[in-house]
Amino acid sequence: MQVRSTSPHGKAGFLSQMLISDTTERALIERIRSRVPTSPDWVTLGIGDDAAVLEPARGELDVVTTDGQVEGVHFDRTWMSMYDVGWKALAVNISDLAAMGATPRGATLSLALPSTLPIEEFDALVDGFLALAKETRVPLIGGNLARSPGPIMIDVTLIGSGRRRRLLTRGGGRAGHLLYVTGTLGRVAAHVADAQRGALTRGAVTPCPLLPVSPASRLQCGQQAAWNKVASGCMDISDGLADAVSQMAAASGTGARILSSKIPVDVASTLDLALSGGEDYELLFAVPLRRRRGFEQIAGRHADVTCIGELTNKPGAILDRDGVSEPLGQGFSHF
Amino acid sequence: MQVRSTSPHGKAGFLSQMLISDTTERALIERIRSRVPTSPDWVTLGIGDDAAVLEPARGELDVVTTDGQVEGVHFDRTWMSMYDVGWKALAVNISDLAAMGATPRGATLSLALPSTLPIEEFDALVDGFLALAKETRVPLIGGNLARSPGPIMIDVTLIGSGRRRRLLTRGGGRAGHLLYVTGTLGRVAAHVADAQRGALTRGAVTPCPLLPVSPASRLQCGQQAAWNKVASGCMDISDGLADAVSQMAAASGTGARILSSKIPVDVASTLDLALSGGEDYELLFAVPLRRRRGFEQIAGRHADVTCIGELTNKPGAILDRDGVSEPLGQGFSHF
Repeated sequence: MQVRSTSPHGKAGFLSQMLISDTTERALIERIRSRVPTSPDWVTLGIGDDAAVLEPARGELDVVTTDGQVEGVHFDRTWMSMYDVGWKALAVNISDLAAMGATPRGATLSLALPSTLPIEEFDALVDGFLALAKETRVPLIGGNLARSPGPIMIDVTLIGSGRRRRLLTRGGGRAGHLLYVTGTLGRVAAHVADAQRGALTRGAVTPCPLLPVSPASRLQCGQQAAWNKVASGCMDISDGLADAVSQMAAASGTGARILSSKIPVDVASTLDLALSGGEDYELLFAVPLRRRRGFEQIAGRHADVTCIGELTNKPGAILDRDGVSEPLGQGFSHF
Repeated sequence: MQVRSTSPHGKAGFLSQMLISDTTERALIERIRSRVPTSPDWVTLGIGDDAAVLEPARGELDVVTTDGQVEGVHFDRTWMSMYDVGWKALAVNISDLAAMGATPRGATLSLALPSTLPIEEFDALVDGFLALAKETRVPLIGGNLARSPGPIMIDVTLIGSGRRRRLLTRGGGRAGHLLYVTGTLGRVAAHVADAQRGALTRGAVTPCPLLPVSPASRLQCGQQAAWNKVASGCMDISDGLADAVSQMAAASGTGARILSSKIPVDVASTLDLALSGGEDYELLFAVPLRRRRGFEQIAGRHADVTCIGELTNKPGAILDRDGVSEPLGQGFSHF
């Protein structure tokens, strides 16, 4: 393998850097495989064949989600380390399984990478992914490596399981059910704004404030709420609270009313960012009134939970801002 | 929605084109969902929630693969229609399940798209994907939409099932087992070379000669060989025959010897392109001698199969070129 003396940005660097183009796809797969710990016994066949093979959980359903991270859209290398990018790529998928109350059983990692990516950055991406995978007990079972002539793109598919009639959907809520959120909202959007005006640089704050707080705790929160039947519906808040509440109400065939005074706005943020800023990856639950105490006890063991309003008979999603009703706006637009 | 009067390339066009940035992510998901036919009954929850839910096949294992297509690397919009690109994105994943002898049960489609993509091109991509999905009975169960500031990127994850001890792996072959390939080789690489020198333009030939021949027949071929136990190993030929033979021998702990005179080189191609050109997506099988007749009958019902050599005791993968032995070179390099 050739060791180049220029940095990936084309300028002479202080250190010689090996790039992923200096090695082969097979060697890169081997670099990943050497980092992956022993798989749990339900993984019949892991990395390296045409496909991976998993034993389904006995008596349970398969739950499947996929979510992608695109450089320049979902992350920026000037703000985030590749370790954090890899961690986040799994985190956003963990969040989807958390919202279903499901348990992860395996993940695939699909990477499209510029050939000028230094190999240490490649390793850091994989290490970040695997650090959260270890914490949430997700075996990496396969994936794909491709060259990107543009930005880094990372797609993760997460496969999990859950018992029939115990899984949470967006549409399980009914009029009168209370709405709860985990954690605080608007935090990530506030830090993205900081980053955009140059007030946040890579590694300046640890852990990176652009990341979801604790995917492992949200996973527990969703699973315990589902298993104990203390929630009727759930979804994750990826595009702002307004979007999540609107979507849950629409899927449940109800309206919704939330109170601005109840929304747990992050100390670094504003109500507007809590409503319309993306990337918090907190959970929104619908909770039947008679399950209120059970929910607060069970979910509250894993994350702070706050009641912010309820699903209503009257169609439409409404924000009550100090006694004045207004329609909930849209969340973050992707295109 | 706004209708723009410029083409996606920034020049005034003859027709007004609506771009995907003129609509919303939710509207685009709805465009996909409206095209998806009724799902089979094992799909408990399809497109639109935080995750999809599938009933596992009774008594079978889950088989999972993921493969991506990157514009400018795996396809080029000047050579291929978006319909063909969508078709190919599923085809390369069908090929992986074919190589395992597995049966598809659901696919996710993750798209990173430039906001300047005309909405008809978006529809064409989805239509191409769904056309092959219909032919191979693969329900589309979910996915992800993101903006790309660069090339189009498409990741597909395909989940299937297969019976324990009936699935084919790369490592199942033993010394003395015969090597067979389906179809002809080198065809796609020859047409890519045509395209690169401007001798192949989009839509000039139908079906597009850059696509795998018949994923549905290869799927049958792999499934029938697996179910009837007439093959000991299989992998798909995505990076040239030399790479596939070398990888199968390495995974099986054997060597391999193939005869240049036996290789079914496509009429449009050359032996070198058959060996080292990518993208054919034919299948390479290892077949025990005593299963030879059964294999030819059963697999031969679904695709032409040709015996090209055998796995050997002696390590290393060898090409016998008219009586002269040479080591098999490497296939296509991705970085």
